[in-house]
Amino acid sequence: MTAPLKAIDGNADLAALMTDLAANARAAARVLALAPPEQKNRALAAIAAAIRAHAPAILAANAEDVAEARAAGITSAFLDRLTLTQARVDGMADGVATVRGIPDPVGAITESWQRPNGMTIERVRVPLGVIGVIFESRPNVAADAGVLCLKAGNAVILRGGSDSFRSCRAIHDCLVQGLREAGLPEAAITLVPTRDRAAVGLMLSGLNGGIDVIVPRGGKSLVSRVEAEARVPVFAHLEGVNHVYVDASANLDMAKSIVLNAKMRRTGVCGAAETLLVDRAAAATSLKPLVEMLLDAGCEVRGDAAAQKVDARVKPATDEDWGKEYLDAVIAARVVDGVDGAIAYIQRYGSHHTDSIVADDATAAEKFLSEVDSAIVLHNASTQFADGGEFGFGAEIGIATGKFHARGPVGAEQLTSFKYRVHGTGQTRP
Amino acid sequence: MTAPLKAIDGNADLAALMTDLAANARAAARVLALAPPEQKNRALAAIAAAIRAHAPAILAANAEDVAEARAAGITSAFLDRLTLTQARVDGMADGVATVRGIPDPVGAITESWQRPNGMTIERVRVPLGVIGVIFESRPNVAADAGVLCLKAGNAVILRGGSDSFRSCRAIHDCLVQGLREAGLPEAAITLVPTRDRAAVGLMLSGLNGGIDVIVPRGGKSLVSRVEAEARVPVFAHLEGVNHVYVDASANLDMAKSIVLNAKMRRTGVCGAAETLLVDRAAAATSLKPLVEMLLDAGCEVRGDAAAQKVDARVKPATDEDWGKEYLDAVIAARVVDGVDGAIAYIQRYGSHHTDSIVADDATAAEKFLSEVDSAIVLHNASTQFADGGEFGFGAEIGIATGKFHARGPVGAEQLTSFKYRVHGTGQTRP
Repeated sequence: MTAPLKAIDGNADLAALMTDLAANARAAARVLALAPPEQKNRALAAIAAAIRAHAPAILAANAEDVAEARAAGITSAFLDRLTLTQARVDGMADGVATVRGIPDPVGAITESWQRPNGMTIERVRVPLGVIGVIFESRPNVAADAGVLCLKAGNAVILRGGSDSFRSCRAIHDCLVQGLREAGLPEAAITLVPTRDRAAVGLMLSGLNGGIDVIVPRGGKSLVSRVEAEARVPVFAHLEGVNHVYVDASANLDMAKSIVLNAKMRRTGVCGAAETLLVDRAAAATSLKPLVEMLLDAGCEVRGDAAAQKVDARVKPATDEDWGKEYLDAVIAARVVDGVDGAIAYIQRYGSHHTDSIVADDATAAEKFLSEVDSAIVLHNASTQFADGGEFGFGAEIGIATGKFHARGPVGAEQLTSFKYRVHGTGQTRP
Repeated sequence: MTAPLKAIDGNADLAALMTDLAANARAAARVLALAPPEQKNRALAAIAAAIRAHAPAILAANAEDVAEARAAGITSAFLDRLTLTQARVDGMADGVATVRGIPDPVGAITESWQRPNGMTIERVRVPLGVIGVIFESRPNVAADAGVLCLKAGNAVILRGGSDSFRSCRAIHDCLVQGLREAGLPEAAITLVPTRDRAAVGLMLSGLNGGIDVIVPRGGKSLVSRVEAEARVPVFAHLEGVNHVYVDASANLDMAKSIVLNAKMRRTGVCGAAETLLVDRAAAATSLKPLVEMLLDAGCEVRGDAAAQKVDARVKPATDEDWGKEYLDAVIAARVVDGVDGAIAYIQRYGSHHTDSIVADDATAAEKFLSEVDSAIVLHNASTQFADGGEFGFGAEIGIATGKFHARGPVGAEQLTSFKYRVHGTGQTRP
């Protein structure tokens, strides 16, 4: 891990480099699209083994990144995302093994029907092509995203944050070793070999058809930039401004347990609840126990007038608190007028990610599930289930909040497209 | 139909107008997303009736458009696309009735599973939102696209070619009448009420989140402009450079009938074959009868050296003929080295639309269907089956050649997204 950080001399050279990378990735994608499931799984097994075997090298490279970041005086949250430990490296290898175990989506016939003229038509999953993944400081995204793209038969071009460059390079060495051992092209998983930030702009341009889709993994500013600049489709992973609405018909114990879990299980994940909505009809009985439970659990509560009344520790919410993604032990809390009020509030302030209703009233629940326009809507369950693993997808590349192609947890299936295969016996069209 | 063509004074007013339109369409989309199938079908029945009842008004408006176009000296092909007849108006109404009859995609549960913790997860179809359809001279697209979007629960903003403005307005009157009779918001199907070409640019900008997806319907230059400028997803409908490959194992009679149909049934449709590829191993026996059949049917053949040899009427192909979409009674013809040669050729020159192999050899057919990266691949059937109606979709808004979201014939189902509905009994995430 002592190779010098590659220096690229000017933008012209960088553009040429990136175009080359994309051309190689495209060629690899063709091979990968036709690779049998066993061969991809051989690569995945070899990658998992390589990550375990090279854990010391990965940790050493990461220590260099961490030292540099510390010297630059970055925040502790950032440091936490950047830092790898033996446990995190093991987790990466376990993740690769999990992806190996999920069903191969490529070639699956999702529909099949016969036409009156005797032709049969099959809808068959095929890979998307070349996926560009742009991420920030978490080096494990290189492994997670790389192998999920591989499973779905796609080539991937990875561009990590420049702070994690050495760590990503060490992980990427393991990915390439696994591809090589399985006889798959090394360009199937490419790491942009430079820290030059201009590489991101080039990826967003699509590299003249070299990249088919961009997946941004990171904070709001990265995702916003990608959405604004990308000239190719983006699997948008926007913020999770998620709500738990507690209906008057809710069982209070269930509501407490769901609200606590939705907010406090992990506050930094995109499936964490950010706003508690309580039915005005139950405010007198439910608001106080819910708010006190959160306060007692160490959560700051920013409330409307009703919420402020139930406990002196509640801070007054400002306009900015409605629709805010805290990603921290903070929640906004307010009353709304029944399920209709909750739906209208979420329509205005939500981010179409994940929202939950706690209710015994089946009609209210059905209304909420139908009318809230979010990727994931839950009845009597925690918003923290917004996760590909929890959905049974084995792994995910993120939670998409757009409505095109991918929505909700993006697993291997959603990283594919499809084609129609038509079997005839000489049919011509009248 | 004597209302003046709306004049918009300057781009600022136009931008305000378009933003208003989009806001109204968004509000209508919310209503439409929750409208029961019966209500949408009532609207469709009323639209079909209105088109039939107002055929004279539609034809009169169209006559004005045609007169203006003639005076401007446009081509006969253009005139043919622009001109409506009683039969074409009847066809429009029949098309609306067909869309009424297809299953409503919204609310369909496409998958459903239970997690080990007892939660059930359903994947349910939901509308996309607001669709912008930009088309050219064929006024019937207003009806076809409008009602297909309606069926799928989407609001639509229609922008036709300025040459067909009066015709589109007359058709749009019928669409609005049907919506009104069914109690649906009129803004569910909006026609841009001005011929100002700047409206197209505003639609491509996405109108600040007002439009979710753009569907271009028209020639290469329109589609290219849309793809280059759009800041929102596009269902790309690119050209159909479609191939028929005749393998050495093909039954010659079947090959003749498929090639003739694929090229000559209708030469102006995107599913028409543009290039004939013949297996070199069968060139001695198959090339001559195939080429002579096409020539005798009135098709110009532009061939490679082998094809030129079989008949003096064959013209030499130039480099530009390979990969050319003629949309006319012209075909390029050449020999290739077996199925591998055909696949490599199509990879280089095709447009990922529709390609067919004629072969008795099942292995060759399987290889072709797997490896040709097109939306539709056929074995022993004509490329002219590339059509939503022929696929059993009832209707289509076009044939998408991209791999994102929509691919192949885009029917009502592909105009939807999905959400996950999770039913719990109090589950929290460990």
